[in-house]
Amino acid sequence: MKKAVVLLSGGLDSTTTLAIARSQGFDCYALSFDYGQRHQVELEASKRVANALGVKEHRVAQLDPELFRGSALTDDVAVPKQRTDEEIGDGIPVTYVPCRNLIFLSFAAAWAEIIPATDIFLGINALDYSGYPDCRPEFISAFENLVNLGTKAGQEGARFKIHAPLVSMTKAEIVRKAIDLGVDLSLTHSCYDPSPDGIACGQCDACLLRRKGFKEAGQRDPIAYAA
Amino acid sequence: MKKAVVLLSGGLDSTTTLAIARSQGFDCYALSFDYGQRHQVELEASKRVANALGVKEHRVAQLDPELFRGSALTDDVAVPKQRTDEEIGDGIPVTYVPCRNLIFLSFAAAWAEIIPATDIFLGINALDYSGYPDCRPEFISAFENLVNLGTKAGQEGARFKIHAPLVSMTKAEIVRKAIDLGVDLSLTHSCYDPSPDGIACGQCDACLLRRKGFKEAGQRDPIAYAA
Repeated sequence: MKKAVVLLSGGLDSTTTLAIARSQGFDCYALSFDYGQRHQVELEASKRVANALGVKEHRVAQLDPELFRGSALTDDVAVPKQRTDEEIGDGIPVTYVPCRNLIFLSFAAAWAEIIPATDIFLGINALDYSGYPDCRPEFISAFENLVNLGTKAGQEGARFKIHAPLVSMTKAEIVRKAIDLGVDLSLTHSCYDPSPDGIACGQCDACLLRRKGFKEAGQRDPIAYAA
Repeated sequence: MKKAVVLLSGGLDSTTTLAIARSQGFDCYALSFDYGQRHQVELEASKRVANALGVKEHRVAQLDPELFRGSALTDDVAVPKQRTDEEIGDGIPVTYVPCRNLIFLSFAAAWAEIIPATDIFLGINALDYSGYPDCRPEFISAFENLVNLGTKAGQEGARFKIHAPLVSMTKAEIVRKAIDLGVDLSLTHSCYDPSPDGIACGQCDACLLRRKGFKEAGQRDPIAYAA
C-alpha cells in the first residue's frame, strides 16, 4: 500500500480529505497540531476521526505558542459572528494565522520523508473561503515545487505530490462526498468558538459555512449548535 | 529602522549573518530552535551571540521532538568523524534533518508577518557544504516566491526578501567577514557532537570545516577543541 500523510484538524474538510485519501488506496498517517488554538476541542475530534477512519498512525504535535506570540491567534481577538456571505468572502479574516498552512505542510513534508511517503493530503478549499492566501491552488503548486527542491528525497528522485482534493468544491459538494464515502460527520468539529463543553456556536464563519453546506446538500447536520 | 528576522543557531555562519544584517541597518529579531538537537550547547551560544550583537528580541522556540521521531535526529545515529574534504562534499550527510530549513524559514516568515518585517536572513552556505538540498540558492528563491504567495502580507503588497548573504562564500571568507565586522567568534559554537561541558569535538564535519576556514583565513580560532 502507498503511504500518505494527511493533515487532520478534525473538521468537515480535513475529515473528508482523509476519507478520500483512504478511498484512493493510501495507508494514511494523520498529523494534527496543538498550537494553542481556542478551539482545542477540535483535537478531540481529530482523534475520534483518526480512530474511526483507521489511520496507521496519528500524531498530535505541540507547536510552541511562543512562535505565534503577537498574532491574532494568541491575542484576545473576538471571533466574528453572523457575518453575511459577502462579508465572509471579503478579504482575509482576523482568524488568519500567519503561515499556518506553510508550517503545517512543512512538518507534513518532514514526516513524509521519514515514513517515507511522497503523497501529502490537505483539506484546503478556495471556493467557500477565498480569504486565506494559503488556501489557493497556486500556493499548493509552489509548495510542491519547493519540497521537491529542498528535500533529500526530492533530490534523490522522489516526486512529492500535494493533494488538495477539495480545493474547487463547494461545501455542499464536500458534505455529499463525505456521506458518499460513509463518513460519520457527527465525529467532526468545525466551530472556531465552541462552548467549554465543545458545543458549536453556530454563528462564526466556520459554523455558518458548514450549516450552509449541509442545507444546500439537502442533508441534516448531525452535530448540535448553541444558537 | 527596518526590521529583520534572523535565524540564529549560534554557529559561525548564523552569527556572521546576524552581524551582516546589523551592518545593513536592520533592527534584528533573532530566532533559534530547540528541536532536541544533541548539540544543545548551541542554544547557549545563540543567547550569548544575540546578547553581544544587541538584537531587539531573541526567541528560542521549542519544536516538539515528536515531529522528527523516526529521523536520524532522534535516532541514535553516530556523528561521522575525521572525514576528508571529498567525503564531506559527497552526497547528503546523515546529519541532514528532514525539512529543517523549510520549517525554520516558515516560522521566521510567521514571525516576520507578526512584527511586521519583510526581510529574513539565514546563514546557509552552498559552497563548503553542498550536501544539504535546503542550502541551495534555488531553494531560497522558491521559498521567497512561496511566502509572497501564501501570506496575508504578501497578498496585500508586501515583498518578502530572503537574504542568504553567505550562500556563495567560502568558510575562510566567512571568518574574515566576521572579523571585519568585529564579531567575537569565541562566543560561537559549531560542533555537532560536543562534550557534556560544551567542548567542540574537533573531528565532526562542522568542526573540520570551521577549522579549515580559520586556517585558510590565516586566523586563530578562539574556541577550544577536544582533539
